[in-house]
Amino acid sequence: MQTQSVEIVEVGPRDGYQGIGPFIPTETKIKFLEQLFRAGLRRIEIGSFVSSTAVPQLRDTREVLQWCAKLPDLQAQVLVPSERRGREAVDAGARRLVFVLSVSEAHNRNNVRRHPLESVGDYERLVAGIPAEIGMRLDIATAFDCPFAGRVPEAETTSLLDRLIPIRPDAEICLCDTTGRADPDHVGRLLSQAMQRFPNVTSWALHAHDTYGLGLANVYAGFRQGVRVFDASVGGLGGCPFAPGATGNVATEDLVWMFHRMGIATGIDIGPLVPLAREAANLPGALPGGRVRDAISASNERCRAQTPEQQVRA
Amino acid sequence: MQTQSVEIVEVGPRDGYQGIGPFIPTETKIKFLEQLFRAGLRRIEIGSFVSSTAVPQLRDTREVLQWCAKLPDLQAQVLVPSERRGREAVDAGARRLVFVLSVSEAHNRNNVRRHPLESVGDYERLVAGIPAEIGMRLDIATAFDCPFAGRVPEAETTSLLDRLIPIRPDAEICLCDTTGRADPDHVGRLLSQAMQRFPNVTSWALHAHDTYGLGLANVYAGFRQGVRVFDASVGGLGGCPFAPGATGNVATEDLVWMFHRMGIATGIDIGPLVPLAREAANLPGALPGGRVRDAISASNERCRAQTPEQQVRA
Repeated sequence: MQTQSVEIVEVGPRDGYQGIGPFIPTETKIKFLEQLFRAGLRRIEIGSFVSSTAVPQLRDTREVLQWCAKLPDLQAQVLVPSERRGREAVDAGARRLVFVLSVSEAHNRNNVRRHPLESVGDYERLVAGIPAEIGMRLDIATAFDCPFAGRVPEAETTSLLDRLIPIRPDAEICLCDTTGRADPDHVGRLLSQAMQRFPNVTSWALHAHDTYGLGLANVYAGFRQGVRVFDASVGGLGGCPFAPGATGNVATEDLVWMFHRMGIATGIDIGPLVPLAREAANLPGALPGGRVRDAISASNERCRAQTPEQQVRA
Repeated sequence: MQTQSVEIVEVGPRDGYQGIGPFIPTETKIKFLEQLFRAGLRRIEIGSFVSSTAVPQLRDTREVLQWCAKLPDLQAQVLVPSERRGREAVDAGARRLVFVLSVSEAHNRNNVRRHPLESVGDYERLVAGIPAEIGMRLDIATAFDCPFAGRVPEAETTSLLDRLIPIRPDAEICLCDTTGRADPDHVGRLLSQAMQRFPNVTSWALHAHDTYGLGLANVYAGFRQGVRVFDASVGGLGGCPFAPGATGNVATEDLVWMFHRMGIATGIDIGPLVPLAREAANLPGALPGGRVRDAISASNERCRAQTPEQQVRA
């Protein structure tokens, strides 16, 4: 019997870092990437090509990207919100792009100051202008819910996909729960509709947030529906710009824990991941999330504190 | 189309309080029960009849129970671990008992100093000795995983149920994830096997812990399998004795949030529940959990902080 497996995409170095105020030195970022790689992570969103005024934390993505060439087995992806930024990224050596746009007009305008259909045009021009061997993923933000407009009907998301998917049929499609307000039935329903409508998509991915505690339930619902690629952020780094003080991305170590308990391989070693998650959570200005980090640390402390005799008595 | 519904059983006043050191005054407990009732909770585990040396926090369960008679619509249930304690509870006026025992021998011995089959005998004598109109629930602890013995095979849990269910076929059966280490596939699998084996059980319940972040995913898996009764603790009160510092029970407000997002009725008003959850989380000595409390409070703060003009600009 073949073991089932999933791919966990580490997005902490992009989605996790971008909201952190104090600049994380480039060498710290690089050292952390190396440690994540050693723990078994093979696809990492290492940064973004965006305005360094808007996101000063990621102004060194170019240098981080250059360093990544040293690890040929690392699939380093970078986020881009426009044709111009996409071309910049490719010129800087990026081999995998993540083009982000929102289903919701209000959110897309807030993010990139244009209508979603203008972003579709931008994507089309980007795809036409870069080599076909550059890996492509589409991050469909507000695929479920918008911080400004509320719940997004499934048909709005699939209509946008109608326009996007033919542009590059081999692109990975990642549905993003930007606000963390999707529920597992909603995740299952939209994925079911989308998978039926676009049977030739080679890879579906899910980007879940844990803001309202539903992150892992949504990942599970996505898994049951057939998704095998999941975004996560070590230590649950990320926060939620729409609910300041609340948590954001699902924690990588929580996903690894869940899938391993279910007998699903991730290729990731949770042993070294937990101290890394602690380190990430302790970054100045970080807003961490996740449960497994504390649960495993606490269990370990307890085991260390018990003498063999005490263990027999327990 | 009829709206689907679930019943959320508030266990904070028992499972949440029992680990809190500083004694919560009886009048505080009663006031809190009243507020929970006003928020729409109709079944509450209000305490336990156990050794007051082992669990001094709940030494006033008898008085709390007497007060509950003032709210005829409140279904107050009390936990008992033995025949003796069960009789005591009934003599004190309890109308609904929760008899707890563990599948795992190590855990049952740790909890009640006897083999699970001795507990079965105890249960049998209790059932024989009390009126049939006393409501009965069985809490099957370590139904999935034991802090001492690890993963519990499904067959061990169903074998114990083979002995228990015929004793009182109308008892509600609650499968408890004592350690929080069940995963959603495990929950679905055990429930599927148990429901098929015991088709005449009138009510299945699930007691999920969020220690490793899987609480809501497990509740969702239980719901998909047909469970309609779920335990939860307001503010996620509870902690985990086997991973000190980690969280325990799933938070009532998180469950209410999830089910409402899914269009499932709970009869509970999340508006007054969130400040109650904050109050519970702030009890001296409390170990809270859950996400919705912070997420909703943060969203509200943000809305209040924004002037209408700012909202238009956002």
